[in-house]
Amino acid sequence: MTSPTATLLVSCPDQRGLVAKIANFIYANGGNIIHADQHTDFEAGLFLTRIEWQLEGFNLPRDLIGPAFNAIAQPLQANWRLHFSDAVPRIAIWVSRQDHCLFDLIWRQRAQEFAAKIPLIISNHPDLGAIAKQFGIDYHHIPINKENKAEQEAKQLALLQQYRIDLAVLAKYMQVLSADFIANFPQVINIHHSFLPAFAGANPYQRAYKRGVKIIGATSHYVTEDLDAGPIIEQDVVRVSHRDEVNDLIRKGKDLERVVLARAVRLHLENRVLVYSNRTVVFE
Amino acid sequence: MTSPTATLLVSCPDQRGLVAKIANFIYANGGNIIHADQHTDFEAGLFLTRIEWQLEGFNLPRDLIGPAFNAIAQPLQANWRLHFSDAVPRIAIWVSRQDHCLFDLIWRQRAQEFAAKIPLIISNHPDLGAIAKQFGIDYHHIPINKENKAEQEAKQLALLQQYRIDLAVLAKYMQVLSADFIANFPQVINIHHSFLPAFAGANPYQRAYKRGVKIIGATSHYVTEDLDAGPIIEQDVVRVSHRDEVNDLIRKGKDLERVVLARAVRLHLENRVLVYSNRTVVFE
Amino acid sequence: MTSPTATLLVSCPDQRGLVAKIANFIYANGGNIIHADQHTDFEAGLFLTRIEWQLEGFNLPRDLIGPAFNAIAQPLQANWRLHFSDAVPRIAIWVSRQDHCLFDLIWRQRAQEFAAKIPLIISNHPDLGAIAKQFGIDYHHIPINKENKAEQEAKQLALLQQYRIDLAVLAKYMQVLSADFIANFPQVINIHHSFLPAFAGANPYQRAYKRGVKIIGATSHYVTEDLDAGPIIEQDVVRVSHRDEVNDLIRKGKDLERVVLARAVRLHLENRVLVYSNRTVVFE
Amino acid sequence: MTSPTATLLVSCPDQRGLVAKIANFIYANGGNIIHADQHTDFEAGLFLTRIEWQLEGFNLPRDLIGPAFNAIAQPLQANWRLHFSDAVPRIAIWVSRQDHCLFDLIWRQRAQEFAAKIPLIISNHPDLGAIAKQFGIDYHHIPINKENKAEQEAKQLALLQQYRIDLAVLAKYMQVLSADFIANFPQVINIHHSFLPAFAGANPYQRAYKRGVKIIGATSHYVTEDLDAGPIIEQDVVRVSHRDEVNDLIRKGKDLERVVLARAVRLHLENRVLVYSNRTVVFE
Repeated sequence: MTSPTATLLVSCPDQRGLVAKIANFIYANGGNIIHADQHTDFEAGLFLTRIEWQLEGFNLPRDLIGPAFNAIAQPLQANWRLHFSDAVPRIAIWVSRQDHCLFDLIWRQRAQEFAAKIPLIISNHPDLGAIAKQFGIDYHHIPINKENKAEQEAKQLALLQQYRIDLAVLAKYMQVLSADFIANFPQVINIHHSFLPAFAGANPYQRAYKRGVKIIGATSHYVTEDLDAGPIIEQDVVRVSHRDEVNDLIRKGKDLERVVLARAVRLHLENRVLVYSNRTVVFE
Repeated sequence: MTSPTATLLVSCPDQRGLVAKIANFIYANGGNIIHADQHTDFEAGLFLTRIEWQLEGFNLPRDLIGPAFNAIAQPLQANWRLHFSDAVPRIAIWVSRQDHCLFDLIWRQRAQEFAAKIPLIISNHPDLGAIAKQFGIDYHHIPINKENKAEQEAKQLALLQQYRIDLAVLAKYMQVLSADFIANFPQVINIHHSFLPAFAGANPYQRAYKRGVKIIGATSHYVTEDLDAGPIIEQDVVRVSHRDEVNDLIRKGKDLERVVLARAVRLHLENRVLVYSNRTVVFE
Repeated sequence: MTSPTATLLVSCPDQRGLVAKIANFIYANGGNIIHADQHTDFEAGLFLTRIEWQLEGFNLPRDLIGPAFNAIAQPLQANWRLHFSDAVPRIAIWVSRQDHCLFDLIWRQRAQEFAAKIPLIISNHPDLGAIAKQFGIDYHHIPINKENKAEQEAKQLALLQQYRIDLAVLAKYMQVLSADFIANFPQVINIHHSFLPAFAGANPYQRAYKRGVKIIGATSHYVTEDLDAGPIIEQDVVRVSHRDEVNDLIRKGKDLERVVLARAVRLHLENRVLVYSNRTVVFE
Repeated sequence: MTSPTATLLVSCPDQRGLVAKIANFIYANGGNIIHADQHTDFEAGLFLTRIEWQLEGFNLPRDLIGPAFNAIAQPLQANWRLHFSDAVPRIAIWVSRQDHCLFDLIWRQRAQEFAAKIPLIISNHPDLGAIAKQFGIDYHHIPINKENKAEQEAKQLALLQQYRIDLAVLAKYMQVLSADFIANFPQVINIHHSFLPAFAGANPYQRAYKRGVKIIGATSHYVTEDLDAGPIIEQDVVRVSHRDEVNDLIRKGKDLERVVLARAVRLHLENRVLVYSNRTVVFE
């Protein structure tokens, strides 16, 4: 499957003939569909689809696919996005002091688990600069406090622009982004170290321990202006017992955080995630 | 979603335009697709799809849908099956002495977790006759031994015919069906009390204990002439420890067996399972 | 392991020699320990243990074990409970309209998964009376509304006394017990259909759907006067996707509710659960 | 809990008074037990225990604890091992070409998830030498083929001795160790990329794909002379579907392999694992 593909993500009001119209568009232009998945939310009256086809043998040149599809999409009142599999998105990883998610994402990128570049690490602490250096990634230390937040966020946004970043991944970045920031750069994935919506906010492991839960979790979600309340992409859990103290929850949780964040980033980068009504459809 | 639907399950050699052709067939006849899913096995060069649409407003009468679709399917060299959601399949449950899967399936059928009738229970032991009586289901005690097997299987086949059975569910029926039987009645789902292919055959819990595994499982599969080697529909597992003796494995395993078998039966009855190369595609 | 056993559950301030003192008490009287487990909460400075030994060959008669152990426990400032494995606790099951947990508990009791009697079912609806009749269990229909709650709870308490009930199991009893009731009868286990503390209170599946979680759960806990906030005994989860509507969550959740409640009841009945600081220690 | 502790792992024929005798030994010498766990295999007539106590305030000097306990152990026909928590075991990691388990173990050791030194990496390929260099670990490339196996194993054994290695961890070392090697150095933990005993031997992911399983697993076990048949320490699983090709199984499996191997190594290093009859007791 190494030949490049195009992927359309479409959502529109449900109506007859949607699958046929989209499939016909691709077939009429000589495309070979390799993945097609649909979902209908009947309550919301919404149709969502992901369709991926091989570009080899496709009659339309790349720059005409969007405009051509738009002619079909307009009358359907459809929102759509088009991606090419050989485009390589650029990721900025945001960290504080913990290195496990950072290491993990770098390892996966190098192991080619996902196709992306990681040119930039942003942190409110200097601690992980050595790792950035080790892997040849630029590291910008931008300390944040209540007074300088707006100013520092402006610097962060400038960096994202300068490095032409497509996706910001908060890999245990223990700071809240402002609504303004999100409005300016909405493509942000976070890992929260709890099974949301339980234990949103600070110190989830301490609170999970205190509550005496028998299972802990981790949640990866798109960041919105409401803290830990954005659309959930992926969650996973692990069993704990009375023998596990807070430090054990933290240790077990790290393994969860790594895989849950990595899965979410991968699903996003493969253009498998559609968001509506603060929910995600994940076309696996 | 209470209006009746039609479902097509199709498999054919992979080629361009399959999604378009099938979707067009439904759209051209005024059908509203409510579920469509595809899978391509590139190595096998095989395309498989499940497509479900509402019959309300569909222009073709039911008895013409099959012939009409066949005209499309023939040139594609496609195998296909057509189902209507208001058809109510008839199930025979086969048991030996254990009652947990039997109880569970009856409860689910009564709770309308799946639409089916259960007019017949077949057993090689008399033990569970009282349960059959309690729920008003005919119970046929057909003891099996080496000498009478062929003769008794003939009786079983006659019963399946007499009761117009669509699906036989081996709910801990601790006997092997002959290749002849399967050839005559191939729609048989079994639950095996191990994580296949580990511990195929007799006494899986004893062998799991002896091997010292830390997780046990259950597997539901279509029955073929090779023991415990048919296409797997569903599996699940549960963690065990050194504290669990064989009896604990049996107890924990029962909970697995119930849900794994029930999920497999439900997926089958909703026509979500396609089989090829001794594997299943499960369109969930 | 069919010979009867005695079990001591002990909690006391942590100090040197606790294991030795308790083990010596049993050994000095000729007891053979078959299970011993300890836990120390260092932060709370609390030692907790469960110790079970065979009564066969034990030199103390049953009615003297408690007083004799008390002489050891007093100077240690220990709380303790003593149980005999051949005592058969009496359970009252409380239901509303849903039958799946009720059926499940009855089936397990009959399958001897736990040793208990179930002489009484209490419900605020008449619906499940037929099931009670089918299994020969007394069914008391006690409708509850805002006006009659105190009065009806008095009736319920009287029934628990009359039937000499040791444990009340809320098997999807969709009513809140008053603080007064709990004070009078504190041995109550509930099943909540969410992964607590997420979605405490009403309509958890609807809220889980709306939040777009990728995993749902069920939680069994001791009932306290704070709604869904008592000590958690057991939890489990199942994965869901965007394809699952509220009804699917409910269906999948039922399978969780059954096993999670059953495990909690079983652990309680085997005297494996100790409560402190609104947490449980579960000696499995 | 930073004060050093001593841990005794004991197994002996089951008999009365074992808990008391061992606890008394510690109490009489002023020790404070912080973890004690027992297990009895009634069928095998075997008692196993792990007991850990603080050395601070313990009256016996370290070098006398063993001899003193031996006086108790001898009449009980007990096997026993004594460990001190501040001893830092030395690990050799064995790899072939895959780096994920190697990276993971190094990261965990640096994150102090377990207390150990990793002075040595042995490989039959030169590929991962750069990683060794990056982290300052000696890397010995010892290529193996059928002709030179005995000779090369002698070199490997010499290295283990030279580096004073306590534990060899086969972190995806795709070679079989000879029975002779194991006899000379029995402390070897392996990770196998299947849910053993399913798919023992070569190419488990390919075989799992072909069999059409719905769940894959990984297994960490002590190495014995029988391939993939040693005592299992830890297993875990992940769900797969028809959409997952062999490469997806490999990718998903890597995440399993990392955590399963890491948990097994950690349990071993904390002296929580006892082996008997090709099974493990894991005192968590």
